[in-house]
Amino acid sequence: MILVHHLRVGRSVFTVWLLEELGLEYELKIYVRDENGRAQDDLKQAHPLGKSPVIEDQGMVIAESGAIASYLLDTYDTDNLLGAPDDPAGRVAWTQWLHYAEGSMFAPLLIKLLLSRDPSANAPRMQGFADKDLALHLAYVRDQLGEKTFLLGDRFTAPDIGVSFMLNMAKQLGGLDEDDPLVGYLGRTMSRPAFKRAWERTGG
Amino acid sequence: MILVHHLRVGRSVFTVWLLEELGLEYELKIYVRDENGRAQDDLKQAHPLGKSPVIEDQGMVIAESGAIASYLLDTYDTDNLLGAPDDPAGRVAWTQWLHYAEGSMFAPLLIKLLLSRDPSANAPRMQGFADKDLALHLAYVRDQLGEKTFLLGDRFTAPDIGVSFMLNMAKQLGGLDEDDPLVGYLGRTMSRPAFKRAWERTGG
Repeated sequence: MILVHHLRVGRSVFTVWLLEELGLEYELKIYVRDENGRAQDDLKQAHPLGKSPVIEDQGMVIAESGAIASYLLDTYDTDNLLGAPDDPAGRVAWTQWLHYAEGSMFAPLLIKLLLSRDPSANAPRMQGFADKDLALHLAYVRDQLGEKTFLLGDRFTAPDIGVSFMLNMAKQLGGLDEDDPLVGYLGRTMSRPAFKRAWERTGG
Repeated sequence: MILVHHLRVGRSVFTVWLLEELGLEYELKIYVRDENGRAQDDLKQAHPLGKSPVIEDQGMVIAESGAIASYLLDTYDTDNLLGAPDDPAGRVAWTQWLHYAEGSMFAPLLIKLLLSRDPSANAPRMQGFADKDLALHLAYVRDQLGEKTFLLGDRFTAPDIGVSFMLNMAKQLGGLDEDDPLVGYLGRTMSRPAFKRAWERTGG
């Protein structure tokens, strides 16, 4: 059975959500952070980086949310529930969104998160960078989403998971207003039964 | 012909390097940053995020280094020069490294870069986070590389490009010592004729 090493609270809820969407059986091993918000040494037994998510399956240890998603979809999503559309442009858009969440959207959010934990920080240019970059990303996702239900249209696909996670992080850090249209999108993705199961199993 | 929108100086040298490795013809459109190190509005005509790399090919506009790499390899690397190995474990390792450069390694480097540009910044916990995280990544790459020539063994593959870029960034930010074994790896990747051509064509 697939084993998921999950560090609370963090990006590995991605992976659990994806597993729930695919209806796969998995075992969850939960780790907690230290008082500085960092992973502790116990997670290093699962993977030398001591970061999460990490999964174990078929004798392999796999890290990186995007790589785990690719592996799980290639291996188990035989009906292409969450994978890329068949046409070339759809495939490109799907791949782009899959990389986008962590490759572009995460950096300003991480900076905001670190600054929020550090009341003594005096780094106005960094705060400015993070706010400006975040605003750019939110505008981009908003425009691209338009009137669509999910990123690629009517069908919920794997990249909706990563982007939703980042939007939710933005919301929690005070970077997404309640009346933003993206909140509606977030409501649609996070009200999925699979997300609720993931949230419950990982302890929120 | 493939058109590359390249913003100097930054991650899009990834894409140009990859194109050079594959021996593909491409046209380069070069953009410069403003005095704050940010892209200017001209790049927004290529892609609404105004970020780079962005390529145009076969009527599609494609962003995100990792997505561009996947597209170029799927479309043009018919001899599998730089793609994943055929065995499942090799494929997983390759995919993991492809995501790793931007998904994990980039964040602490970006923080170090921003702090280096902001002499008034007083954010010791952020600096601490970035340094600790960077040290962790360097140790990981060093251990995984071991005595191998490239990340996956004797063959240079696409993920070597992203990881080399991040290691070079670490070096430039004072985070990688001259006697670190990773400097040897960086010498091997960056002495490739394809990198030299990419460097020259993009203006370094």
